[in-house]
Amino acid sequence: MVSVGPALDPTATDSAPSTLLGSYVTTLEIPTRSREEFVDIGPQVRALLRESGVRDGVVHLWALHTTCGLTVNENADPDVPRDMLRKMRELVPKDELYYRHAEGNSDSHVKTSLFGPGLTLLVHDGALVLGRWQGVFLAEWDGPRTRKVAVRVIASGPASADPT
Amino acid sequence: MVSVGPALDPTATDSAPSTLLGSYVTTLEIPTRSREEFVDIGPQVRALLRESGVRDGVVHLWALHTTCGLTVNENADPDVPRDMLRKMRELVPKDELYYRHAEGNSDSHVKTSLFGPGLTLLVHDGALVLGRWQGVFLAEWDGPRTRKVAVRVIASGPASADPT
Amino acid sequence: MVSVGPALDPTATDSAPSTLLGSYVTTLEIPTRSREEFVDIGPQVRALLRESGVRDGVVHLWALHTTCGLTVNENADPDVPRDMLRKMRELVPKDELYYRHAEGNSDSHVKTSLFGPGLTLLVHDGALVLGRWQGVFLAEWDGPRTRKVAVRVIASGPASADPT
Repeated sequence: MVSVGPALDPTATDSAPSTLLGSYVTTLEIPTRSREEFVDIGPQVRALLRESGVRDGVVHLWALHTTCGLTVNENADPDVPRDMLRKMRELVPKDELYYRHAEGNSDSHVKTSLFGPGLTLLVHDGALVLGRWQGVFLAEWDGPRTRKVAVRVIASGPASADPT
Repeated sequence: MVSVGPALDPTATDSAPSTLLGSYVTTLEIPTRSREEFVDIGPQVRALLRESGVRDGVVHLWALHTTCGLTVNENADPDVPRDMLRKMRELVPKDELYYRHAEGNSDSHVKTSLFGPGLTLLVHDGALVLGRWQGVFLAEWDGPRTRKVAVRVIASGPASADPT
Repeated sequence: MVSVGPALDPTATDSAPSTLLGSYVTTLEIPTRSREEFVDIGPQVRALLRESGVRDGVVHLWALHTTCGLTVNENADPDVPRDMLRKMRELVPKDELYYRHAEGNSDSHVKTSLFGPGLTLLVHDGALVLGRWQGVFLAEWDGPRTRKVAVRVIASGPASADPT
């Protein structure tokens, strides 16, 4: 059982070195390229699910930041994320006369709470349980940056072992 | 331990046949009747919780779609969902001049990410842990359709077995 | 293993007495002071995590109400929550001519579903897995009130016990 990517050190800052853990707890590193962008992290999540060996259970994902979140939405037509980002920019524009936060990214904080920082994906028979069009995305609201997503895979045991 | 409703086949499309699993993993089928609607799925979630036999743990719910989500809100006064849907229609109207997605439902995708695709409900002593006014809803943003919600019930064991 | 705060009685109303449970299921009581406010509940969540003795796993949090939610965002510069609350008030104002719900808090219900009622936090080596700037907040949308947050801490076992 090996970790995928740099392992989790909850006290680490972005620049701190991290230690590999022989465990299901790990972090993904996600580089982003624009201020606002949906980055498909499905391939990375599936890779670590395979490495975990878990067949049935859940994958908990958690973005370790306050200006990006996680979401699930269509990964087929690129016009969908494009329209979504455009609409979010209109609803929560970068600048408002009343914003006081000196970093100038209050809008990114709002959008992060609206989309949410975490996802719990179901796992069945070694695969993510997703609808036909569902992709797993990091929702970048203040990029470009390198983002970290903490992951914990929990096995719920085979069906026959579940009952009380 | 039996499944409730059609069992889960993560690779199934909406029209594919599904196989029953003797497990806590299952899907609910939720017919919706309007383009935008909150459908109370509490009775179905409680039914499968009873059938699972789990007394303490969590229920993970996941909508297998990109234009409907899940939410918890008031299930007493029907004016609450009515006002909520009205407000969401105003915030994210169906049509915007800048939308490009050919299906014409970009607003549904936005609202799905805003409300979120999944919920983790707590289970205690065989019951869902919900506040007095909380109901569990499928939030339909592009109906009417038949929707599928994947469910995994995980037993956390009795309290006395939890400690390390 | 002791509970922190009044223990969970899922059938309890706000005024009902509650019974202590020797378990990881418990409730936090959070007093709020304004109509709209983010209250840092990190210290209370960390206290009960310590008392649970769980070293690795997850903490599931659930707000037992329909007019407040939970979120994670910056807990450093107070201008961030201030700007966020201001923006949310503009997006979803208290009054709209078309609201019908007699209690006059339809906006609070909308904001609750937008931010969401629950969070699943990861636990590693006895600590919450959070980014450097992430704080855990109750998002009050219709205060001041005393709010209840249900908590279930689930141990996933030490890393070496996880693999199949």
